[in-house]
Amino acid sequence: MTRQLKRSRTQEKPRDPSLRRSLDMWDIRDLACGTAFLGSGGGGDPQGAVLELQCLIGEDARIPLIDVSELQDDDLVAPCGWMGAPTVSSEKLPNGREALQGLRKLESTLGRAVAAVFPIEIGGSNGLFPLALAARAGIPVVDCDGMGRAFPESQMVVFNIYGCSAGPVVLSDEKGNCVTIDPATNLEEERLARALAIAMGGSCHVIDYPGSGYQIKQHAVRGTVSLALSIGRSIRLAREVGQDPFDGLFSALRASSYYRHCGALFEGKIVDVQRETRDGFAIGSLTLENFSGTSRAHVGFRNENLIATVDDVIVATVPDIISVVDMETAQSITTDKIKYGQRVVLVGSSVPPILRTREALKILGPSAFNMPDKYVEIENINKWLCAI
Amino acid sequence: MTRQLKRSRTQEKPRDPSLRRSLDMWDIRDLACGTAFLGSGGGGDPQGAVLELQCLIGEDARIPLIDVSELQDDDLVAPCGWMGAPTVSSEKLPNGREALQGLRKLESTLGRAVAAVFPIEIGGSNGLFPLALAARAGIPVVDCDGMGRAFPESQMVVFNIYGCSAGPVVLSDEKGNCVTIDPATNLEEERLARALAIAMGGSCHVIDYPGSGYQIKQHAVRGTVSLALSIGRSIRLAREVGQDPFDGLFSALRASSYYRHCGALFEGKIVDVQRETRDGFAIGSLTLENFSGTSRAHVGFRNENLIATVDDVIVATVPDIISVVDMETAQSITTDKIKYGQRVVLVGSSVPPILRTREALKILGPSAFNMPDKYVEIENINKWLCAI
Repeated sequence: MTRQLKRSRTQEKPRDPSLRRSLDMWDIRDLACGTAFLGSGGGGDPQGAVLELQCLIGEDARIPLIDVSELQDDDLVAPCGWMGAPTVSSEKLPNGREALQGLRKLESTLGRAVAAVFPIEIGGSNGLFPLALAARAGIPVVDCDGMGRAFPESQMVVFNIYGCSAGPVVLSDEKGNCVTIDPATNLEEERLARALAIAMGGSCHVIDYPGSGYQIKQHAVRGTVSLALSIGRSIRLAREVGQDPFDGLFSALRASSYYRHCGALFEGKIVDVQRETRDGFAIGSLTLENFSGTSRAHVGFRNENLIATVDDVIVATVPDIISVVDMETAQSITTDKIKYGQRVVLVGSSVPPILRTREALKILGPSAFNMPDKYVEIENINKWLCAI
Repeated sequence: MTRQLKRSRTQEKPRDPSLRRSLDMWDIRDLACGTAFLGSGGGGDPQGAVLELQCLIGEDARIPLIDVSELQDDDLVAPCGWMGAPTVSSEKLPNGREALQGLRKLESTLGRAVAAVFPIEIGGSNGLFPLALAARAGIPVVDCDGMGRAFPESQMVVFNIYGCSAGPVVLSDEKGNCVTIDPATNLEEERLARALAIAMGGSCHVIDYPGSGYQIKQHAVRGTVSLALSIGRSIRLAREVGQDPFDGLFSALRASSYYRHCGALFEGKIVDVQRETRDGFAIGSLTLENFSGTSRAHVGFRNENLIATVDDVIVATVPDIISVVDMETAQSITTDKIKYGQRVVLVGSSVPPILRTREALKILGPSAFNMPDKYVEIENINKWLCAI
């Protein structure tokens, strides 16, 4: 079946040169460092995505990054990423065609071309893979995401908080299977897509919550690709000039409006990791001990780090960011790469206000993970964060 | 999205009146008796489908049944049925809209109207549900099916033996979810659709192997709706005139070319039933004892009865039909309705030759169910069947 696909004006109109940017491999390596932090442990170790992008575009090519304001209202824009347990996706190699197969299926289902893509979550490898899809499809990446961090379930996304529909959802895998879901509800999408992700071997590519340029302008978390880039760049520059890379991390976060309440919650060595791949997730917990052996911190995770306690006192909970960061390099370690003996800093930060609303917390707060604890903003638990 | 749906010529051309038939509720009750036998224990207890049809069309309306030869080569024809464990589908009531939702989705996916439907398997309730869809959509049912009996897995179908593709496959459930699969292979379709059927609560409506009129003419097992009807009618008529209803059953089977090697393999009481709903199937076994207590028969099933032994000697294996038939009424009992204490006759019959080819046996013979036994035709195991 062939159909006339409507090319969007986004790709034809002259852009404001001040907004036009593009990313090369140097940027992508910085970006990977930033998405690892913003993922709150989730989204999968970005190293695989960096390697894929390196193979795909080489050192010299650039991938266009556009601002949300550059979208036309009637553009079709596709958020995308990989679904499943990062413990699986870091080992199960893609065939490289999944994302483009899914994009083409979405286009044939809706009868029009996709104008741009963006990360459904700005976390780990999922913050980077949309760049590979953009390069393959010859379309730009939009400087935004759907979560302002990473979350384990697909309905934990700002578009769902705002009442947008998840469908049509397109899942594709390395065998060449392609599945389109028109879900009854956004929660049903998660249920069915999760079952498929498991049947597809534990991970698959997903495009969900496709929307118009207007919807993306209204609802997406803006500027998070740039933020991830600035985090990575700031850490790298600090390292290059011999400064503490954590100064780089915190200065980049503090320069942002949403993530500025940030700081080190605990320092120590990982002395225990419990992790299993179950129900399509990497589920577990880790224990840290400080170097004098007098204090312990505990982090529970489901793909993403969800709650952190220090000596049994809660210091941060979802949706605030809890990242385990290498003490020497300030490189965040995703939950699938956590190992006994790593010397790390537990870093927390605030998140965009849309994730902290009452409606949002029902969808992605502690109660959504069956945790009895009430959500308290990280800067209100740790008053010193506000003072910095 | 609206599309111009091409109405098929099948519904417009004047038909040969000699071929034109239709089914009313009396026919449907006879049909239900026949599909219960041809299902080899599977397809689900037809009673629920009879009730649905009664509500839907009432006593007087008729559903058009057309011969395969009446299809135009370029008609779009959709095989359909329910997938999952019959132990679930006999309890989980449909909302009544699943099948039509799936049909409309197939039409919008392929951009043309479906001209007719038919049962993917002529077994149990799955031999009847396509009539309800036909009534809802206002299109005829074709006198054929895709299996010549019922099988537990979706790739165990003649269209797969002939190399046709399963996709696009449309699954729909009572919550309103609708999923379209473009599978990499027909075996992948079964894997993904099964995972979805489980996620959809254990059963869902499925349309797979949609084909052209030409393909259906080439590959479908012809005349099986009529055969089921004649089995049911023959049993009913025998009962009405006080004859042995088993004479009715066997005379109808012997009048057919494919199922004529048939007979009673064992008579007795069900003394044990092991049944569990696992991996989306009703899996188990049952034991029969003859009335003198001197002999035992054993039947293993996965939705359908797959192997029957009498005193540890194999008397029939898949793909031949093995049905457990009520001793008084000659009404076949599907595996989801088997109970301790039922007095039954184990009846076997031959199947269409396409199911007995080497290629077919790889897909649906004993080895496809991990049974070590080599397939031997029922009339060659039980020589007396040929002599009848």
